[in-house]
Amino acid sequence: MTEEFFEKELAARQITEIPGMIEFDIPVHGDNRGWFKENFQKEKMLPLGFPEEFFKDGKLQNNVSLSRQGVLRGLHAEPWDKYISVADNGRVLGSWVDLREGESFGHVYQTVIDASKGIYVPRGVANGFQVLSETVSYSYLVNDYWALALKPKYAFVNYADPALGITWDNVEQAEVSDADKNHPLLKNVVPLKKEQL
Amino acid sequence: MTEEFFEKELAARQITEIPGMIEFDIPVHGDNRGWFKENFQKEKMLPLGFPEEFFKDGKLQNNVSLSRQGVLRGLHAEPWDKYISVADNGRVLGSWVDLREGESFGHVYQTVIDASKGIYVPRGVANGFQVLSETVSYSYLVNDYWALALKPKYAFVNYADPALGITWDNVEQAEVSDADKNHPLLKNVVPLKKEQL
Ligand SMILES: Cc1cn([C@H]2C[C@H](O)[C@@H](COP(=O)(O)OP(=O)(O)O[C@H]3O[C@@H](C)[C@H](O)[C@@H](O)[C@H]3O)O2)c(=O)[nH]c1=O
Ligand SMILES: Cc1cn([C@H]2C[C@H](O)[C@@H](COP(=O)(O)OP(=O)(O)O[C@H]3O[C@@H](C)[C@H](O)[C@@H](O)[C@H]3O)O2)c(=O)[nH]c1=O
Repeated sequence: MTEEFFEKELAARQITEIPGMIEFDIPVHGDNRGWFKENFQKEKMLPLGFPEEFFKDGKLQNNVSLSRQGVLRGLHAEPWDKYISVADNGRVLGSWVDLREGESFGHVYQTVIDASKGIYVPRGVANGFQVLSETVSYSYLVNDYWALALKPKYAFVNYADPALGITWDNVEQAEVSDADKNHPLLKNVVPLKKEQL
Repeated sequence: MTEEFFEKELAARQITEIPGMIEFDIPVHGDNRGWFKENFQKEKMLPLGFPEEFFKDGKLQNNVSLSRQGVLRGLHAEPWDKYISVADNGRVLGSWVDLREGESFGHVYQTVIDASKGIYVPRGVANGFQVLSETVSYSYLVNDYWALALKPKYAFVNYADPALGITWDNVEQAEVSDADKNHPLLKNVVPLKKEQL
């Protein structure tokens, strides 16, 4: 768990390293049955800074991945925004790399997240995570639709690039996809232009 | 797991017992890391019958509850629609009771669901589940906002009412909330009128 898990107050912090990234504290209510959380609540979260533009095209997809300990997914920057979260008692090291053209290109943010956090990741920022618990359910909302045919147009950076300085655990042994092994080093990534996003 | 878990084709079935209820098969893609699913994909699911009206007021909430084996939550019919799903390797017995005024009042549907199913539950239908696995992450989208102050206006039916005929497992020992113990029997539920929904 991060510092505390239950009964945090709903709150939002801008991540200064990566403009537009927001970290939410999510209240988790525990009882005799387990726990309950409003993982996303539009009416409460818009006033805290969740971007209204997320909904502007009326598109919505909710993805869930289940991963075992040591699995590492990423780093992927598809042309849509993401609101990511953990949906069970698991824990991940989340990492993000700004791939947008501009001053913050290459900036990195990392933090451990559990179900009491929610992270808003603007399009153009590569997203990835390593599983720290036995398993983890990783759930996220996105506002455009993935297609296999479009994958060559998505942007990626190699998780194992030492230039990123991400403190992965035992990264050589990480369980990854073949695709993720072959993504470019940061120095070879062509910064994403506004028109591409 | 239900009949099959991986690589079902996305499909939808109307639940004839309860008008407006829809059961989706969700494709789950397994690999060396675990699995991935598009739990909700608006563009693909609207043509299969997911109601466009779900989005008409632009409201959105995503709830997640984590429950231990034997926990039973429900049966609750708040004035909003729900798209419910399992977000991990868990399994629940899902049960639904129609509390809407009309011919289908009191109709019951039950089925075991895992991550390869998604259930659309129209407002006015009471929703509940019992956990069959060691733990379960239960995740759902709703289109209006819960408030503690409004709870007296929400409709409920007692999970333990034998008139429902739900095949709960060892229901006397189920771990429930105090609130859920005290909901009315079906015969004492006042059917919900259209205006209340
Ligand atoms: C991303 C995605 C994948 N798939 C399929 C393709 C594969 O069969 C299977 C797994 O796809 P992969 O791209 O290997 O999953 P992945 O878990 O590596 O990809 C995800 O990683 C996260 C870190 C990113 O934030 C996400 O945006 C996404 O890129 O799921 C979909 O059907 N829809 C989708 O939206
Ligand atoms: C439903 C809800 C509860 N809460 C709080 C109130 C309590 O502190 C805690 C647990 O609430 P409870 O009502 O006991 O949770 P619950 O898990 O028993 O309630 C749920 O049961 C499902 C079967 C229904 O489909 C859901 O619609 C909901 O009613 O969470 C919220 O903050 N927002 C919400 O939307």
